[in-house]
Amino acid sequence: MSSVFTEFDLMAELHQPGDKIVLLVMDGLGGLPMQAGGLTELETAVTPHLDRLAAEGMTGLSVPIRPGIEPGSGPAHLSLFSYDPVRYEIGRGVLEGLGIGFTLTANDIAARGNFATADADGFITDRRAGRISSEECVRLCAKLQAATGDLLADEGVQIFVEPVEQHRFVLVLRGEGLGGALTETDPLATGKRPLPVTDSSNSAEGERSAWLINRWVEAARQTIADEAKANSLNLRGLAKKPDLPHFPHIYGMRAAAIAVYPMYKGVASLVGMEIVDFAGDRPSHEIDALEKVWNDFDFFFIHVKKTDSYGEDGNFAAKVHEIEEVDAIIPRIVALQPGALIVTGDHSTPAVLRSHSFHPVPTLLWSPRVRPDTTTSFGERSCAAGGMGIFHATTMIPQAMGHAGRLKRIGA
Amino acid sequence: MSSVFTEFDLMAELHQPGDKIVLLVMDGLGGLPMQAGGLTELETAVTPHLDRLAAEGMTGLSVPIRPGIEPGSGPAHLSLFSYDPVRYEIGRGVLEGLGIGFTLTANDIAARGNFATADADGFITDRRAGRISSEECVRLCAKLQAATGDLLADEGVQIFVEPVEQHRFVLVLRGEGLGGALTETDPLATGKRPLPVTDSSNSAEGERSAWLINRWVEAARQTIADEAKANSLNLRGLAKKPDLPHFPHIYGMRAAAIAVYPMYKGVASLVGMEIVDFAGDRPSHEIDALEKVWNDFDFFFIHVKKTDSYGEDGNFAAKVHEIEEVDAIIPRIVALQPGALIVTGDHSTPAVLRSHSFHPVPTLLWSPRVRPDTTTSFGERSCAAGGMGIFHATTMIPQAMGHAGRLKRIGA
Repeated sequence: MSSVFTEFDLMAELHQPGDKIVLLVMDGLGGLPMQAGGLTELETAVTPHLDRLAAEGMTGLSVPIRPGIEPGSGPAHLSLFSYDPVRYEIGRGVLEGLGIGFTLTANDIAARGNFATADADGFITDRRAGRISSEECVRLCAKLQAATGDLLADEGVQIFVEPVEQHRFVLVLRGEGLGGALTETDPLATGKRPLPVTDSSNSAEGERSAWLINRWVEAARQTIADEAKANSLNLRGLAKKPDLPHFPHIYGMRAAAIAVYPMYKGVASLVGMEIVDFAGDRPSHEIDALEKVWNDFDFFFIHVKKTDSYGEDGNFAAKVHEIEEVDAIIPRIVALQPGALIVTGDHSTPAVLRSHSFHPVPTLLWSPRVRPDTTTSFGERSCAAGGMGIFHATTMIPQAMGHAGRLKRIGA
Repeated sequence: MSSVFTEFDLMAELHQPGDKIVLLVMDGLGGLPMQAGGLTELETAVTPHLDRLAAEGMTGLSVPIRPGIEPGSGPAHLSLFSYDPVRYEIGRGVLEGLGIGFTLTANDIAARGNFATADADGFITDRRAGRISSEECVRLCAKLQAATGDLLADEGVQIFVEPVEQHRFVLVLRGEGLGGALTETDPLATGKRPLPVTDSSNSAEGERSAWLINRWVEAARQTIADEAKANSLNLRGLAKKPDLPHFPHIYGMRAAAIAVYPMYKGVASLVGMEIVDFAGDRPSHEIDALEKVWNDFDFFFIHVKKTDSYGEDGNFAAKVHEIEEVDAIIPRIVALQPGALIVTGDHSTPAVLRSHSFHPVPTLLWSPRVRPDTTTSFGERSCAAGGMGIFHATTMIPQAMGHAGRLKRIGA
């Protein structure tokens, strides 16, 4: 037990063996009507199986971060996994690394890199280098890797320059004794010179890390100095992989992550879930995987991505269709007889906004031990009147634990 | 004001004289349907008076500890009294002492004792001594009291060995300078030897207390060594009475506790409520007592036990009937014209589960100053849509205070 008794300490103290739990996440599930008086994506979708679960179980609205705050994918998933993302931060560099499937070790510092355009005196004229193509990004990263990969070998530090998309890349420094609290180079405005990286932790390792990164930045800018657009670069969110409390330890559950996209596998593995490999990329393939590993785990996180992608595209109909595809696989999950099944999203991505949004997320909890509410369908409006009320996403796992008989009584 | 400004500091700063408050607690009130599609105990009960209060007032669902966590009686009542039980812990020994009505002083360490069976080498073979009868427990405690009551008199320490039921008893050491953070003797598994008590506070008083208790344990085990089943024992939850903030000081209310069972009187007295003596054990007798002391107090906690007992028995019909009995006495409370009346439970005890459960607790608040919601009856499903929403039990007293005109405005 840590010196300050936390919710996690409480869970670690109270957990006991019990039934299996499934957390089915449709990314960006929450929506909005396309016009006043209309229905949301979820309300439009024909979802007989989800509606039946909502009728037998209870529903509510989940607040991923804080009211009014639009979540990024990383923080939104941390919150679903019960880690308050205001308290547990993942650096942008680490998130970008997770997003491209780069396996970070405990010896790595990762930074998000942005190619930029600078004038002859080094003043930034375009912080995104005219949003160069992703192909250009790949070429530039290869050029940097070739020219600077061994730059810090004398210090026992390896360099990895990995493309993301357009002007974005990931820089990873790998070596013993890296760390500190490192500042960013991006002046956050055009007409200014990039800043040097400094260490605000006043530690020896921080000072050395800043010095190493500044050495690399200088060499990297020289390497691309002759590029037309991407002749400079900036680094943001420089940090090591966070040392998050271990989900299986907190909850006493062996946890499996079934996801297609690297980012979600990455965040799940950060908290100690095990990644399930499987063929295919459709929700039905994910359930194939679920059925296969059902006996090996206590907790299953299943991630469906396309609901969010179609929301980002502004494609209302395709998002509706994807929700209906997920509805079709619900009976296969129910047939496995979980002790608690939660269907939710990490955040809202209304097609009308073509973006993540701050709106709370429709959620249903189904369990043999659930107290039914008056909800008879799964949709934003019905969830707003559901028996779970409006709750913080971080309480979802504890609620599922209770319903699955996995928490001991507190006190006599 | 303490160094950390707490909710209690805020209440102590804002309280002012006002109307009287009644907190009527039906233990284990919350329920579940016996089968899918059915009604809960409270929804089944015919409760015209409670329904009228729900219609005139507002309702909601109370979370006693944290979402998903099943409360014991002690923590659940602490929470109702506005003390977060995750922060304010009562030792198991103290709870057992409260449960049997043993009056603990500030000089006492109390432990929960379990008679156990050990083999010839002292290894535990049954941690509950075959669940001996309560009569056996009485005999064994008397034997221990006679043999060990004066064991530590040379150290100025008195010993009390009090039976609870079956294999359970309470040990109390009373003397100056006892304390520390004491570990338990129970190895929590058979096939192991009991552990010595140690002090993890590294204090002189802790070290001495551990030494005294180990002396007692050794003498006690010798005393019962010839018993067939209960030839050993273990001690758990060794602690002093917690020094809880004083309810009357925090809220500026003289508080009365009207309860039949010792445990609830005990927890109420721990926070500084005064215990009202009265004849009889039915809800109507409790209202007799309420009427009698109405002019002497500002706040009244009334505890009805049987709703929980019938829930634990799995007796749905009897729990329904007890709720109806409580409904019948509601007009007598209303006739006293309280400024705020809350009807709630400390936790749920669904007959179908025959146990306490984690489900949130139906709650109604009635007051001349209440803003009515759309609820027209008192039941789990209607409360889920009530105007109080889903709230932590610790906020109930402050809500009642506001409705009773007992909190000053904050700021100008």
